[in-house]
Amino acid sequence: MWIETKTEEEEASRSRASFSRRVLNGLMLCTGDMEHLDKYIQEKWFVLRLAVWGLRGVARVILANNPLSGALILAALYWASPWQGLLGTLGVLASTLTAVVIGQDSGDVAGGLHGFNGMLVALLMGVFSSAGDWYWWLLLPVCLASATCGLTTLLDHWDLPAAVFPFNIIIVLYLLCTGTNNPYFPRDPVVPPGAVEPNDTALIAVEVIRGIPLGVGQIYATEALGPSLLILGAIVLYSPLLGVHAVLGSAVGTLAGLSMAVRHDSLYSGLSGFNGALGCMAVGGLFFTFSWRTHLLAIANAFLSAYSDIALSNLLGTVGLPACSWAATLTTTLMLLLTGSLAGYRIPIGQVKAPECNMCSRSQWEAGNTEERESTDV
Amino acid sequence: MWIETKTEEEEASRSRASFSRRVLNGLMLCTGDMEHLDKYIQEKWFVLRLAVWGLRGVARVILANNPLSGALILAALYWASPWQGLLGTLGVLASTLTAVVIGQDSGDVAGGLHGFNGMLVALLMGVFSSAGDWYWWLLLPVCLASATCGLTTLLDHWDLPAAVFPFNIIIVLYLLCTGTNNPYFPRDPVVPPGAVEPNDTALIAVEVIRGIPLGVGQIYATEALGPSLLILGAIVLYSPLLGVHAVLGSAVGTLAGLSMAVRHDSLYSGLSGFNGALGCMAVGGLFFTFSWRTHLLAIANAFLSAYSDIALSNLLGTVGLPACSWAATLTTTLMLLLTGSLAGYRIPIGQVKAPECNMCSRSQWEAGNTEERESTDV
Amino acid sequence: MWIETKTEEEEASRSRASFSRRVLNGLMLCTGDMEHLDKYIQEKWFVLRLAVWGLRGVARVILANNPLSGALILAALYWASPWQGLLGTLGVLASTLTAVVIGQDSGDVAGGLHGFNGMLVALLMGVFSSAGDWYWWLLLPVCLASATCGLTTLLDHWDLPAAVFPFNIIIVLYLLCTGTNNPYFPRDPVVPPGAVEPNDTALIAVEVIRGIPLGVGQIYATEALGPSLLILGAIVLYSPLLGVHAVLGSAVGTLAGLSMAVRHDSLYSGLSGFNGALGCMAVGGLFFTFSWRTHLLAIANAFLSAYSDIALSNLLGTVGLPACSWAATLTTTLMLLLTGSLAGYRIPIGQVKAPECNMCSRSQWEAGNTEERESTDV
Repeated sequence: MWIETKTEEEEASRSRASFSRRVLNGLMLCTGDMEHLDKYIQEKWFVLRLAVWGLRGVARVILANNPLSGALILAALYWASPWQGLLGTLGVLASTLTAVVIGQDSGDVAGGLHGFNGMLVALLMGVFSSAGDWYWWLLLPVCLASATCGLTTLLDHWDLPAAVFPFNIIIVLYLLCTGTNNPYFPRDPVVPPGAVEPNDTALIAVEVIRGIPLGVGQIYATEALGPSLLILGAIVLYSPLLGVHAVLGSAVGTLAGLSMAVRHDSLYSGLSGFNGALGCMAVGGLFFTFSWRTHLLAIANAFLSAYSDIALSNLLGTVGLPACSWAATLTTTLMLLLTGSLAGYRIPIGQVKAPECNMCSRSQWEAGNTEERESTDV
Repeated sequence: MWIETKTEEEEASRSRASFSRRVLNGLMLCTGDMEHLDKYIQEKWFVLRLAVWGLRGVARVILANNPLSGALILAALYWASPWQGLLGTLGVLASTLTAVVIGQDSGDVAGGLHGFNGMLVALLMGVFSSAGDWYWWLLLPVCLASATCGLTTLLDHWDLPAAVFPFNIIIVLYLLCTGTNNPYFPRDPVVPPGAVEPNDTALIAVEVIRGIPLGVGQIYATEALGPSLLILGAIVLYSPLLGVHAVLGSAVGTLAGLSMAVRHDSLYSGLSGFNGALGCMAVGGLFFTFSWRTHLLAIANAFLSAYSDIALSNLLGTVGLPACSWAATLTTTLMLLLTGSLAGYRIPIGQVKAPECNMCSRSQWEAGNTEERESTDV
Repeated sequence: MWIETKTEEEEASRSRASFSRRVLNGLMLCTGDMEHLDKYIQEKWFVLRLAVWGLRGVARVILANNPLSGALILAALYWASPWQGLLGTLGVLASTLTAVVIGQDSGDVAGGLHGFNGMLVALLMGVFSSAGDWYWWLLLPVCLASATCGLTTLLDHWDLPAAVFPFNIIIVLYLLCTGTNNPYFPRDPVVPPGAVEPNDTALIAVEVIRGIPLGVGQIYATEALGPSLLILGAIVLYSPLLGVHAVLGSAVGTLAGLSMAVRHDSLYSGLSGFNGALGCMAVGGLFFTFSWRTHLLAIANAFLSAYSDIALSNLLGTVGLPACSWAATLTTTLMLLLTGSLAGYRIPIGQVKAPECNMCSRSQWEAGNTEERESTDV
């Protein structure tokens, strides 16, 4: 008799769970990781699959794994500058194709993990070039550098994300290679944020606040407000929680910049904010289950990233180099290596999904545990 | 019959061992690691325990784990400069409290392992500030930077001590952040030791010899002779062997400085010696069982540390940064990674105690082995 | 009955294998790894054994493990400059003896693995010294620096070769220590390859092509054509495949230099080529089984090494330092860490031999597998 009761109860709980799961899936059709798309395109043409991988790669830069976000971001880039959009597209394709050719893990390729570094390298090479837009010779180093990014999957052994290490290494090597007065690929030297300005005017508060959303756009090296807001929208589409952390991190970065009296340009253009935004997004919800403790840790990491970025920019600025996103990459890697009670919130790299999904899977799993215990009590 | 003999013999050997152990314990009440204190304060107020943890943290900078040594050193710092003493106290407390709050391993916290980096950061921020003593705004970055040091326990995976890596990283980041002409936290650029002086006078031998004890004081960034000798006394209180190695290492560092013709200031102030002292102390007795081979290795490491320090100071001096204790930290980590027959003398990190205690536990353990073998023979 | 057939067949296949092995051994008496020599000298005087270890160490610089190649290379060095030859000999002996004294793994010592870093350090210290030849005081730092190289075997844990990391670290430390105007050990600052020349004359094609074999000689810091060709001969003696990759890599490096418009001197002297040569040799046949895929990877690595070398030279040139072989060492280490389908071609460090031998042992092993399967079928 009691056996039947148990099965009925189990079935009921299962149907309840399946219903809630179905509702959740319905909500997450266009948001979150969009895993259902992978099954749908599995049998389709290679070009279509490559496009989806590429769009996932585009979104991966802001730690999102959603082709729609990628499409929005690509649109924002073409809006800001068609030349930059072209470079970005080329970079993500060159990088992904190289990974396919040398036979990297197909799951990683499909997740866009081999595309985002190539894209960033291509974008930054365009930004730092002083030869102007539509300088076609630039496509040669862009393709080569992006392809080199496709080679790399390194930090698997330590359960760490490869993150933007390849991008940061390759772009620094390229900029060092060409120098500032290269006859083929000229570029302007980078001014460190600590440099004093001759006529030190007062800060304009509106411009500083405008720098906060621009900090999100600076992740893709855009300095226009419209495209930056569109990129922010793409983040919110993937995960609203990530979007909140992006803005919060950018604000924290701007605050850090203010406290260290960096150049006004640096604050106005959002350059002070983007490392903070990246650091805040990575810790707040993505690699750690969201809770008030990880939220505090995310803010701490945003501050650490922002200050490290100022420090590295001042250091690398002495040889005319930008600090790119070294600061956020290093501090986030450090946070992931952190031991202590916070390590309990860490999500293993293989199971990282959209923050909402992470919370959901954790609570479901805990609910499952409770149910099990209850049914054992019967 | 023989069973009784055995038990009697065993008991006798036990009582002999317990007696010698009691004598040793009696001698080591105030020297060595003072582990008995931990049991004594276990049930006491949090403030008292925090004070002991902090004092252990103060002593940990010179690789000692003894609250009395810590108290002596703190007295020396207040003697040299009350402002520096205050900064040091604040640093060690901020760092230890952060570690408590984020839930680091309580054994590590009680051993002062989360305090010494914060203290060093605080001291160095005070030394490099050109705003003068009692510049209260400095307490803000001091607290933040020290708290950041409390986050870190990193190298557990490789059985290496975290050492002063966090301190070295954080202080370099802070100095890079502020730059030399920061409106809020100004500082003077650091002159590299290889810089030639305009009027090259002859060296004064007495001053050079005076630089050797000053080298021990420079570990805490004090340049006065009295406090330096008091700090040396604190080391001797913990372990006379460590004290000998400290002076020896400082002398080796001064010798290395002489052979490379560094600036006279660098020799006179003890800056040439302190990396050698740290390197010599770490290898000679602390992380390796003391023997003539490890003694030679300690001297070799002192030379390596001192030369590396000159090299790094020259390198970092080009961007106006000090080399801090990077040299000693790196070379010591290298020595701990060394394979070959020397690796046999290596003491696992978890069992590192005062050098005398290390030797004692090894010989006791060997004696125990022999006894056991004898009793098995009966 | 069938048991006898099997044994007969087995014996026949064994005798066939032993015959082919004997022929191979006959061919490989003077080429390849010359392992038979080790058995022959095992019982001989220490001095003779030390000489063989040293010569192996000399050849190890170009990744060869053959004492005859080492002798040829040493002859080339004495031909180019007797002083440099003396320094090289001293360096390899000091380093090997240190390794013997501190009790490093005897197999590694006999294979010359503890000699080549010391030799390179000694050669480079001679090259960068501006005190002229036969400046006897230089022997003191040469011996100390080479001995320090003898301490190091580090990367065993990660199945990576220690490579020339110790050399690169020690030489940079030495050059930083002495600075450019040291009273005891003076040297000229290094000019980065990206520096523009005042009167930019046209490139001379013959000189550029002459730079390709010079690039192989630059591995040993020789700039003369004759000794460079002799060194190339020594590589071909060890393994013709390695020789081809050396020339190919040097050509790739020169091409990379041309594409980045480096100084003409850099191209003419072979400095542009030697990192490419090292990178190409390491990947093409030595650490990976030779095939067309690894051949392509070798060329890619040569490009990567060459571009990284230009980048690092420009960076380190700002503080007057040379980039040595950092670029090739880092990119090759990266290639060895590469995952994906190429990792299948990777040869474990303990089994690395001459490229021809690697291919042979792989095909023999596969043949053995097939034979075994056949005999199981009987």
